[in-house]
Amino acid sequence: MRKLKMTVAYDGTDFIGFQRQSKGRTIQGTLERALSRVTGEKIHVLGAGRTDRGVHARGQVVHFATTSTIPAERWRFIINNCLPPDLAILEVEEVADDFHAMVSKWKTYRYEIDTAPVRDVFQGRFRTHLPRRTLEIEKMQLAAHFLMGTHDFTTFSSAKADVENRVRTIYDCKVEQDGLITAIEITGSGFLYNMVRIIASVLVDVGLGKRVPEAIPVLLEAKDRQQVGITLAPEGLTMLRVGYTAWE
Amino acid sequence: MRKLKMTVAYDGTDFIGFQRQSKGRTIQGTLERALSRVTGEKIHVLGAGRTDRGVHARGQVVHFATTSTIPAERWRFIINNCLPPDLAILEVEEVADDFHAMVSKWKTYRYEIDTAPVRDVFQGRFRTHLPRRTLEIEKMQLAAHFLMGTHDFTTFSSAKADVENRVRTIYDCKVEQDGLITAIEITGSGFLYNMVRIIASVLVDVGLGKRVPEAIPVLLEAKDRQQVGITLAPEGLTMLRVGYTAWE
Repeated sequence: MRKLKMTVAYDGTDFIGFQRQSKGRTIQGTLERALSRVTGEKIHVLGAGRTDRGVHARGQVVHFATTSTIPAERWRFIINNCLPPDLAILEVEEVADDFHAMVSKWKTYRYEIDTAPVRDVFQGRFRTHLPRRTLEIEKMQLAAHFLMGTHDFTTFSSAKADVENRVRTIYDCKVEQDGLITAIEITGSGFLYNMVRIIASVLVDVGLGKRVPEAIPVLLEAKDRQQVGITLAPEGLTMLRVGYTAWE
Repeated sequence: MRKLKMTVAYDGTDFIGFQRQSKGRTIQGTLERALSRVTGEKIHVLGAGRTDRGVHARGQVVHFATTSTIPAERWRFIINNCLPPDLAILEVEEVADDFHAMVSKWKTYRYEIDTAPVRDVFQGRFRTHLPRRTLEIEKMQLAAHFLMGTHDFTTFSSAKADVENRVRTIYDCKVEQDGLITAIEITGSGFLYNMVRIIASVLVDVGLGKRVPEAIPVLLEAKDRQQVGITLAPEGLTMLRVGYTAWE
């Protein structure tokens, strides 16, 4: 058996999420079908993170085991020929048997918000549209700064996140503005269910002046999901990169 | 009656073209339904150009007549609320009664080609993918130069183009490369059926070394569609701008 690691990109709009379901189009299911067809084996794919319905990826990482003897450099071309236009393999490499896509050191996500009066028909699939809102970038940057470091993120995760330990480390959280596009880029040791979209929601509230940046430490301390607002829409979210060696 | 001019953008992927058909999703039909709903009148929309199935627009121009008293500055917001995410109104202005969207002085189209080994899952809807091809930009620029000016474009139009006069003026034809993306931007007095996609096809042949730039004057002179190859795919083509005053 060989183990292969693949870096994958997808436009999540027309998928019901990463994880295979009994019904509906998923990233995992689509990859497994293509790989099974190519190898003639029943292939199981495991991913670094199970992105939700509508969430995109530029650098999701998956692994699978196979007895196929296809050389590593041929895989990308062969599998891409079996994939739909909204899912593509960017890289394939052979890895040691103890590699597991889920056991990553860090992940980077990007959340994009468009405040233009009219939705962009070309990029609208990849951004959340908040027409005519003014986001105060300096306030968002200050709030982002308060998120960095190791904290209990109970306040910033879905009540559905069924895990004991909600302590995570945020290595970096940048907020950038380019014209009417605001982007939040966040790197952490790991993320709880809906955590990036809830963080984006609170940072947008800060940008709109609904909360002060100094509310962040208070919210972290509260460990109470009820204290923050809605989870922002999935279409603005993209999984950018996954790292398997220590951050920095 | 008032006459309104609208600038329209669309992702043409999921439309069967601009022109209303008895069946299928069209730009004209979708705009007319939205405008009829808003005004309570039966609205007819006319466009600067009838883009084909799969062709996009950043600046298509349409006009329509209405007795509605909605102020010009409110139209955009109201109609966009009735439109799907792949079609948007960018501008609305009131025009004189003798304005006709089709009677333009020039149009600019852009054709984008991606030669990366893997199709871009985010931008792939708006580019033609020619994986791993090398396009020699200087040769394409020289060929583009030969297209400029006033010529009979019979060789560069579909045999289906049912018009007598196939003489058109090309005001500008630029070829640019940014990494693995090659873009052809062409401005002319008007374009025959499939003309931009056939020109793009011939320029790509020149870039691939299959033809020399000096073949262009010979092809123009021949006035024979059989002398050129396939029409390039519609997804790479975008209508950029339409002008109603003289070029330059």
